Amino acid sequence: AWQAMRPKIGLVNPDIEKNEEKVVNSMDVEDIGDKIAFCRCWRSKKFPLCDGSHNAHNKATGDNVGPMCLKRKNA
Amino acid sequence: AWQAMRPKIGLVNPDIEKNEEKVVNSMDVEDIGDKIAFCRCWRSKKFPLCDGSHNAHNKATGDNVGPMCLKRKNA
Ligand code: FES
Ligand code: FES
Repeated sequence: AWQAMRPKIGLVNPDIEKNEEKVVNSMDVEDIGDKIAFCRCWRSKKFPLCDGSHNAHNKATGDNVGPMCLKRKNA
Repeated sequence: AWQAMRPKIGLVNPDIEKNEEKVVNSMDVEDIGDKIAFCRCWRSKKFPLCDGSHNAHNKATGDNVGPMCLKRKNA
């Protein structure tokens, strides 16, 4: 495909669902437990959840990305 | 700073809180309304919320990123 011609290094998302025009994930608020962390580095093996892969990306590139975290107040 | 020496194009996050070692945002589940969309392209003017800026990024680069959306079931 034409996407194979593009250099991966300039992309926010090099690998996840590259067959999709736009990767949008959705979740019900009621399904969130006491806490959850959503990946924003696009390198997680558990995407859309954060698995800590942002740390390797940051170290390799000098970037400073991390997850969006949600928690329940009284949990 | 040393970060000014790095090429911005290889970074997931070119501009947001580059003085921070790692940008982690947090929110209480109870503060989410009927729906919310969290930015994962790092180009939103309303970061950590999505403002639709992922579309311009995708068009300019051939990327395919979009937000993480949460909604309440009975909203
Ligand atoms: S693994 Fe992507 S933000 Fe943590
Ligand atoms: S503006 Fe960044 S994902 Fe929508």
